[in-house]
Amino acid sequence: MRNQLCRTFQTAPAAVPRKDSSKYLRSGLNAEGFEAPDWLVPDLEDGTAPEMKGEGLENILELVPDADVPGAIWPRVEWSYDDPDLRQRGREQMTTLVGELADQLAGIVVPKVGRFADVKRAAEAVASAERAVGLPTNTIELSIIIETARARSDLREIGRADFADRLTGLVFGPVDYTAELGGRDLGNGRPRWDGMLEVLSNEASANGLIAIGGPFDDLFTERAGVTSYNGDAYADQIEYEAAVGLDGSWSLYPKQTIQANRIHMPTPAELDRDLSRIEQFNEAKTAGTGAVMIDGQMVDEATLKIFENTVRTVQTINAVHPSQTQTRYDEDLLGRALAME
Amino acid sequence: MRNQLCRTFQTAPAAVPRKDSSKYLRSGLNAEGFEAPDWLVPDLEDGTAPEMKGEGLENILELVPDADVPGAIWPRVEWSYDDPDLRQRGREQMTTLVGELADQLAGIVVPKVGRFADVKRAAEAVASAERAVGLPTNTIELSIIIETARARSDLREIGRADFADRLTGLVFGPVDYTAELGGRDLGNGRPRWDGMLEVLSNEASANGLIAIGGPFDDLFTERAGVTSYNGDAYADQIEYEAAVGLDGSWSLYPKQTIQANRIHMPTPAELDRDLSRIEQFNEAKTAGTGAVMIDGQMVDEATLKIFENTVRTVQTINAVHPSQTQTRYDEDLLGRALAME
Amino acid sequence: MRNQLCRTFQTAPAAVPRKDSSKYLRSGLNAEGFEAPDWLVPDLEDGTAPEMKGEGLENILELVPDADVPGAIWPRVEWSYDDPDLRQRGREQMTTLVGELADQLAGIVVPKVGRFADVKRAAEAVASAERAVGLPTNTIELSIIIETARARSDLREIGRADFADRLTGLVFGPVDYTAELGGRDLGNGRPRWDGMLEVLSNEASANGLIAIGGPFDDLFTERAGVTSYNGDAYADQIEYEAAVGLDGSWSLYPKQTIQANRIHMPTPAELDRDLSRIEQFNEAKTAGTGAVMIDGQMVDEATLKIFENTVRTVQTINAVHPSQTQTRYDEDLLGRALAME
Repeated sequence: MRNQLCRTFQTAPAAVPRKDSSKYLRSGLNAEGFEAPDWLVPDLEDGTAPEMKGEGLENILELVPDADVPGAIWPRVEWSYDDPDLRQRGREQMTTLVGELADQLAGIVVPKVGRFADVKRAAEAVASAERAVGLPTNTIELSIIIETARARSDLREIGRADFADRLTGLVFGPVDYTAELGGRDLGNGRPRWDGMLEVLSNEASANGLIAIGGPFDDLFTERAGVTSYNGDAYADQIEYEAAVGLDGSWSLYPKQTIQANRIHMPTPAELDRDLSRIEQFNEAKTAGTGAVMIDGQMVDEATLKIFENTVRTVQTINAVHPSQTQTRYDEDLLGRALAME
Repeated sequence: MRNQLCRTFQTAPAAVPRKDSSKYLRSGLNAEGFEAPDWLVPDLEDGTAPEMKGEGLENILELVPDADVPGAIWPRVEWSYDDPDLRQRGREQMTTLVGELADQLAGIVVPKVGRFADVKRAAEAVASAERAVGLPTNTIELSIIIETARARSDLREIGRADFADRLTGLVFGPVDYTAELGGRDLGNGRPRWDGMLEVLSNEASANGLIAIGGPFDDLFTERAGVTSYNGDAYADQIEYEAAVGLDGSWSLYPKQTIQANRIHMPTPAELDRDLSRIEQFNEAKTAGTGAVMIDGQMVDEATLKIFENTVRTVQTINAVHPSQTQTRYDEDLLGRALAME
Repeated sequence: MRNQLCRTFQTAPAAVPRKDSSKYLRSGLNAEGFEAPDWLVPDLEDGTAPEMKGEGLENILELVPDADVPGAIWPRVEWSYDDPDLRQRGREQMTTLVGELADQLAGIVVPKVGRFADVKRAAEAVASAERAVGLPTNTIELSIIIETARARSDLREIGRADFADRLTGLVFGPVDYTAELGGRDLGNGRPRWDGMLEVLSNEASANGLIAIGGPFDDLFTERAGVTSYNGDAYADQIEYEAAVGLDGSWSLYPKQTIQANRIHMPTPAELDRDLSRIEQFNEAKTAGTGAVMIDGQMVDEATLKIFENTVRTVQTINAVHPSQTQTRYDEDLLGRALAME
């Protein structure tokens, strides 16, 4: 199932050392309402400890077939441009996952890709797993995590590659990226790597791909003995990502999923405002005006597209999550949005 | 007429639905002093409504021959990398404009170019219009608006192309760009797309091209019932563009033209300071010092070039707009600036 | 001697018009403790006036053989992508320096390189000087100053070139760069060219090179008649450079060297914190957890690498400057850092 809506890319460890080792995976699969991510990513890579990988794979094979999620399921396997053993494990994980769960998976997430040739190798590994079960070409999609200097260096070539029909998402991985570059973690998502975010958004748009921001790992703050969810800093980050055209954001935690789902969805006031501006602009155009002043802003065909994006985002979310749009917008407003062609 | 001075790129709709449909075009052509843009861009694209395009073209043909502007005239035609009908209309507009106004036009502005091949196609369209009237090759120049993800992705190849002798300006188009990337308009020119501005400035300088910033469309602000010109925010944007080496800025409005013409021109204090620093550095160099401390700054041959840029900018403006330099600088200061070799 | 530690790249004019024309060079070579730069760069280019170049070269030949510096010596010669006379002088300077000082030099710093072909030409000039004295290939390394639009445009190709075994450092040159792009010097290192710093750090990491920030030339500030060292603004700049993964920073002055050496070295608190986090993470991993919450942060294998970088930096500095690590860390803390594999 190809699902181009990805406001939220939520990773869940496939296995943790608890009595119920699938606790977080199960929780992700059962999430409802705004807690349900658009993409759920059962994680066999860094989120699952080395000796739990096998159990993690079993958990995925056991839980996913019965899951009834509104979004798409995208397991993350092991991989690394500089470690053939990890790549071999990744290939085996892909073969098992695609072999057993072909109908349930949207695609595979491959981390730590390097230069163009390594991404091509990852695409071929997915193709091979797909062929082994006789699926039509490009049924199983590929998303890659851009978290190495090599991948950023080759990003333009990667986006334009002839495996582009399989490639769906470009996901930023700032923690590994900061480590590779020898940078420092200043906390609260700093450095934000603004240049990377711009280029990621650009190359995704140039090639019809989805661009997704990276994890924000400072989940909690402590002050005078009390620990709180660090929701303001996360929301600031997601608002920035939305502004520069990332389609979605990474979530490590249900509250992050709620926030990212909402921030990548227009507020009722924004939707109402942009619908009104579209109407005002279209009236002016009918009267022969190419550019018109609305609320102090000079609006023309280019500006109109930004307003139309607002409405189309609502239409897309409504097609997948009608309960979310019905919760967020009143009937009249939603009706106006859905009526736009 | 090749005119490498472009502090201001002012678009004017070629036709609006008024009794005098050429009102804004005429106003742009008649502007004087600091209201006169270095480049006037009669706009047949987004600034003119679909059913007014024909009348807009007629307005240009009628008014431009009698215009006596200090700057250069660069009409913007229709074009799009993903719409052959728009490109056909653009070709016809170019043929008419170049055919009728060859002596008056500096070049043609082509919007919404895509990858390298599309820019090449636009350059060939200008060449074809030029050949049709028997003009020498590269008489009519080309400036392109960088406002698609594809154009940014290919920017380096575009700047280095073998049509570089025709290419003159790289102009940013943030509104279409934000729409293409799926970003959000945060108002007051945000997001500012800093990465794009840096790359645009770099590729322009690497290839001897002019780099021009994008339109700032929040022309007015309203507070407690009173609407005011949003001049502070515009000036901040233009100052930033000048700092990162853009040669000029887009104007949508006469007051914006006044501000951008002035901001891309050194203040008397800056001119005086940089002339003095050049003199101090040259004295030190004569005495055998390579790097000298001036006002707490370590100055060497590299810093000197920045000071010399200040003076050369004044010399260039003086050659085209002596009334502006005479208005802005006293006779003695201007004399010192013009005396520098 | 290949020395991959470069927290500080301190240029010293090879000759100044004083009775002791080698005053600053001597001072750089004799610096001790945190005033000693990791790389000392005797400067034959912009730091030394035209008529003093010959004397500067003699000063280097005279002082370097007796110098006992803890760091590496990297003379900067003359060069320019657009001036064959300067390149010829640079070739002669390289031949003399490598011929006379082969055992003392780590490499040659070449400024104002242009496109890929020019960098290749510079690498061949070093190779030629090396062959002339019969040294094994790649004994004498090359670092280049990225300060032209052409070099940034070709940076990816330059980093991947087949002369990569000779290339060691990519050094930013913001003053020439700002002048080339026609930008403005806003003071205190502004514009900071964030896009350039990110790309420089990325291409260095993608190719195993060292990335070094540019000079900060506003050494002093004056207020109400009193002049002070501008240490806060410099430290802010160096902290930013360290955060985005630059390995070292440029110094123009002994106090800058002290600050940059310290900022590119973890504080005792950082070292203690990251050692503790490594221990906590490894405990959790042994217990089967892939991602663990430490101080409110979700830590996994990727985050671990950032902590390990902190410790490795201390190990590398300790190998070259044991007096610095012994001064900065208590015995117990340093012992824990050195014990990590």
